[in-house]
Amino acid sequence: MSITTTTNSKEPRITLVGAGPGDTDLITLKGVKALKTADVVLYDALVNEELLEFAPEHAARVYVGKRSGDHTYSQDAVNKLMVDYAINYGHVVRLKGGDPFVFGRGYEELDFAALYNIPAQVIPGISSSIAVPGLQQIPVTHRGLSESFWVVTGTTASGKVSTDVYEAARTKATVVVLMGIHKLAEIAEIFKNEGKNNLPVAVIQSGSTRDEKVVVGIVDTIVELAEENKITSPAIIVFGEVVSLHPKFQPMKEFYDIVAEG
Amino acid sequence: MSITTTTNSKEPRITLVGAGPGDTDLITLKGVKALKTADVVLYDALVNEELLEFAPEHAARVYVGKRSGDHTYSQDAVNKLMVDYAINYGHVVRLKGGDPFVFGRGYEELDFAALYNIPAQVIPGISSSIAVPGLQQIPVTHRGLSESFWVVTGTTASGKVSTDVYEAARTKATVVVLMGIHKLAEIAEIFKNEGKNNLPVAVIQSGSTRDEKVVVGIVDTIVELAEENKITSPAIIVFGEVVSLHPKFQPMKEFYDIVAEG
Repeated sequence: MSITTTTNSKEPRITLVGAGPGDTDLITLKGVKALKTADVVLYDALVNEELLEFAPEHAARVYVGKRSGDHTYSQDAVNKLMVDYAINYGHVVRLKGGDPFVFGRGYEELDFAALYNIPAQVIPGISSSIAVPGLQQIPVTHRGLSESFWVVTGTTASGKVSTDVYEAARTKATVVVLMGIHKLAEIAEIFKNEGKNNLPVAVIQSGSTRDEKVVVGIVDTIVELAEENKITSPAIIVFGEVVSLHPKFQPMKEFYDIVAEG
Repeated sequence: MSITTTTNSKEPRITLVGAGPGDTDLITLKGVKALKTADVVLYDALVNEELLEFAPEHAARVYVGKRSGDHTYSQDAVNKLMVDYAINYGHVVRLKGGDPFVFGRGYEELDFAALYNIPAQVIPGISSSIAVPGLQQIPVTHRGLSESFWVVTGTTASGKVSTDVYEAARTKATVVVLMGIHKLAEIAEIFKNEGKNNLPVAVIQSGSTRDEKVVVGIVDTIVELAEENKITSPAIIVFGEVVSLHPKFQPMKEFYDIVAEG
């Protein structure tokens, strides 16, 4: 028996890698090691493209996020591309913003790889749900203020606000809403209906990057503040007493107290 | 004016670094960069000590977790050590398991540093709450199964199960309980009281490390399974339909279906 080495003799395999929230230094060492052995990198819109420099020169870099105009690859198309590249080129790194399993549809990709018996591995990433508030020094949990945090999507498969947001608004948990900025008014209304008009809220756009913007307020004021500050996607929304720990919150609270007294 | 350089002329500063769940490769590039410029590293019990190798030779490595016997440094003692070292030695890296703000009491440390006007920065870490299920290929969110996940502590400051666990058991969220393994029976009871006897549950010990152990069952069976398999701390518990995606779940489900039919 002899071993022949040709360009397409590489064993197909797939690694889902969480790229983190945007700052290239927030990828893990393990994620970098995977990139360094990639033959193909399939990457999303929310991934910082500087990370592609970790891949070898020969590796193909394929963008599967939004393209010019509004066209997006469907999940089916991404799944097929991923398997096709693995069979033809070897090691495919599927580089995804944040963590692959936090609204990342990572499991669907694993599942598809399994259909073709292609070994697949997951390397977790820093999720913006925890890290983006954290980088603003807003802890998702804090003794005396919050014993839990609940991460919900603002946009479900049907395009609606998740019914879980309605449940979350009733609880004491810190509530982190991802992909909800375009529905901020609707979501704030849900909290108002629970009598949480004065609950502190932060909206953070492009967390961890040079374009980071933060707005801090309360349920009653956050929609106006976000509009005034032209906050757009990608942004996360944090509802909870922990937001009162943000340095911008205290002076604002004093201002409102004065207004209320006046 | 002249600049004098002495061993204690370094500007005091503090960096809280999330070390991730255990696998040394799950620290971020940014965390490694911080360690490489540390004069002192203060590290916890759940931190993989191999990470200390990233610190310069001259850096002091100070363990502030549990020591022989049951003695633990109090949070106050850690805060004071941290500030004292920063003033006397320069850059203190406070290396914490997981993410500093997920039940890590990181904000208390930031707050204490601020009292002394010592600049402090946070570098997020991979939280076991998301990554440990993820490495077992259990996604905390998955289309059709879960639109949210709720992370709760099993052990509050008073030593009790958080009341948030009671609320979480009522919802459709994937519920991840940290620091709850010693109260597994009590927590399972809470889910039983909500009629969730058949809800899939996973218990994962020492996730991401060589000692990793996983047990998969349902609310009614998980306590016995965890005992049989001698699961101990540190371990996380995951309640939710997403656990049914774990490869060990399907054959077990078929077994129970057969038993039920028999």
